[in-house]
Amino acid sequence: MQVKLEPAVVRGFRFAGVAAGIKKAEGALDLGLIAADEPAAAAAVFSANRVKSATIYVTADRVRSGRLQAVIVNSGCANSFTGKPGLKLAIDSCAAVAKLLGIKAELVVPNSTGVIGHLYDLGNYAAGAGAAVNQLREDGMADFARAIMTTDTRPKTASTTLRVGGETITIAGAVKGVGMLSPNMATMLGYIVTDAAIAPTALKRSLKAALPTSFNAITVDGDMSTNDTVILLASGAAKNRAFTPRDSAAFDKALTEVSQALARELVRDGEGATKLVSIEVRGAKSASDAQRAARQIANSPLVKTAFFGCDPNVGRILMAAGSSGAMVESEKLVLFIGGTKVASGGRLLTEALDEAGRAMKEAEFTVLLDLKLGKASAKILTCDLSYDYVKINAEYTT
Amino acid sequence: MQVKLEPAVVRGFRFAGVAAGIKKAEGALDLGLIAADEPAAAAAVFSANRVKSATIYVTADRVRSGRLQAVIVNSGCANSFTGKPGLKLAIDSCAAVAKLLGIKAELVVPNSTGVIGHLYDLGNYAAGAGAAVNQLREDGMADFARAIMTTDTRPKTASTTLRVGGETITIAGAVKGVGMLSPNMATMLGYIVTDAAIAPTALKRSLKAALPTSFNAITVDGDMSTNDTVILLASGAAKNRAFTPRDSAAFDKALTEVSQALARELVRDGEGATKLVSIEVRGAKSASDAQRAARQIANSPLVKTAFFGCDPNVGRILMAAGSSGAMVESEKLVLFIGGTKVASGGRLLTEALDEAGRAMKEAEFTVLLDLKLGKASAKILTCDLSYDYVKINAEYTT
Repeated sequence: MQVKLEPAVVRGFRFAGVAAGIKKAEGALDLGLIAADEPAAAAAVFSANRVKSATIYVTADRVRSGRLQAVIVNSGCANSFTGKPGLKLAIDSCAAVAKLLGIKAELVVPNSTGVIGHLYDLGNYAAGAGAAVNQLREDGMADFARAIMTTDTRPKTASTTLRVGGETITIAGAVKGVGMLSPNMATMLGYIVTDAAIAPTALKRSLKAALPTSFNAITVDGDMSTNDTVILLASGAAKNRAFTPRDSAAFDKALTEVSQALARELVRDGEGATKLVSIEVRGAKSASDAQRAARQIANSPLVKTAFFGCDPNVGRILMAAGSSGAMVESEKLVLFIGGTKVASGGRLLTEALDEAGRAMKEAEFTVLLDLKLGKASAKILTCDLSYDYVKINAEYTT
Repeated sequence: MQVKLEPAVVRGFRFAGVAAGIKKAEGALDLGLIAADEPAAAAAVFSANRVKSATIYVTADRVRSGRLQAVIVNSGCANSFTGKPGLKLAIDSCAAVAKLLGIKAELVVPNSTGVIGHLYDLGNYAAGAGAAVNQLREDGMADFARAIMTTDTRPKTASTTLRVGGETITIAGAVKGVGMLSPNMATMLGYIVTDAAIAPTALKRSLKAALPTSFNAITVDGDMSTNDTVILLASGAAKNRAFTPRDSAAFDKALTEVSQALARELVRDGEGATKLVSIEVRGAKSASDAQRAARQIANSPLVKTAFFGCDPNVGRILMAAGSSGAMVESEKLVLFIGGTKVASGGRLLTEALDEAGRAMKEAEFTVLLDLKLGKASAKILTCDLSYDYVKINAEYTT
């Protein structure tokens, strides 16, 4: 039941990824399609941003029935801040796909990612959807994962299998999103499918249980997107018996592990990132204090540039914790960088800095701040802030 | 009564700036001194960071009396997160200065700025203080302003004169701080002196009135320092009559204008900054909504890299506003960049983007977001996020 960073075949689903001419680059894959053989149990979570993509309104409305049969995702255009024309475009896009698949439009949801404020061409989109329907394959998840990328440098998938309800089931997913990425609800696009037979309400509960330690525990730049969506579909093709409580717990655990693997891949591929850093705050007075302190450290430009420079800059980490609003007492806290204790008893352990600096030269390391004030903890995955982050975002223009 | 970006002579005060060997660079000015001829009325505000410099505890304790006679400021070492040895060092430093000046130690306060977690050498410091006392001059504010710099590229001063209480008085100040700079209390070091005769309680009220639109309305990187301090001293050497309410209002206005000029200089010299951008949010439902939205825009790495790229990226600005927690309705808001309307009626005004992009090529421009939901507004000065910000902060090591 180990999670692999690979796509998988999941009974009951087919996938495709095609070039529809939505992205400017000739021949770039920009339209992905997931189609279930029958209406699948469905659950979804969305961006908490008050400026929302038209696609989120349509998806949120349709997933309420607990059943979906197709998800169509374009990259290169976010269809966000596009008013009524954007809403009409999202609905018309679904109608075109539904017609091609011979299913009801209410069973199709549209997702979009890319530049905000623009509409895509419906003609190109519909033609692309036609090609996608023709290319649908059981082993098409890799193509789908590639078609939803924007500034991502590589497709991101994860999968696992487990035995529940007397059957072996598979959980597999694909995600995109390496910038405008900050933890609140689901801050990227993510699609997870399973062949398990599971009711929509149970599916929704499982998805919510997986979020706090996966997609809601990562950040690249503290910026929350307007299009974030995670959709979870279950085909029931595994024909398993109803889950026992023990099966439910096993399913939740596996789903959480797949979600964590996917979330980790997002940060590893964060815009300009050269390092993956796990920020853990322990011993906080309250859960919200732990979250605040961990996020403030994870989003601080000064901390993130120090990570880039392999600089064990204790001062910046404590500055961030201290400014987070969380209770912090200098005399009590203990700080570790890469496993080396660098601060305690209210003072910097200067003699330990060389060793901490060496650990920071690795592609991955941890920062652990124990506040010694209580029992709450929080963990956030982040990356460093490099020249390339600035380059990518100063040049990626409207 | 116009504010000039120049130092001034302020009756009752003398200033000095010397090289004490606290900074590594040979001969770099790193110790500044302000000395009043007599105990001056004094007021101060400090960082809200929970990890505070030892110097802040000493300064906050001593300013409570409402009278101070000397302020000694070193750069190159923050004396923050230094525990009891740091507190002792701050107190001993003041004692050395007091002895040199022949005044009570309780009338001297120490400020420090630089790397966190280290102590400076008291011998070097005291020798430097001796040199500073010898160099005290009425026209020494320029030297003082230079001695308190860290990553600042230039000294920052401002001054003005006004007629109150039957006399012409001067208000002049010096500030430092171009990184770890974010608006909450006073997020930098700032020193403002006046020859006005004014009671400590009135001085404190004036300082608090000046903050919201000056030092608390700027950001470079959203990171709040552990050492931020603004000190305001009044010598009374102008021998003016007691302020009438009209005089008080005039004094407040002048102090606010000097503070705004100094705050603006901080952001103009922000680490790696190539552009000064005024972010104004109007028509918010509440004052806190206006503040949240303006600050989220001002601190968003994606917005700031777009500023650097002269990219009129409406989507990122609206993304930031929408994720701030403030009420935002896409259909109602109107957005201007550099005076050009770029969004309204729920859609991007594509035809206006070229003109907005041209305005962004200037060294200064404004972003105005009218939410059209209420009457509250807020204004924050920020800068862009450039390669040089990353360079400065990846290389400025512990």
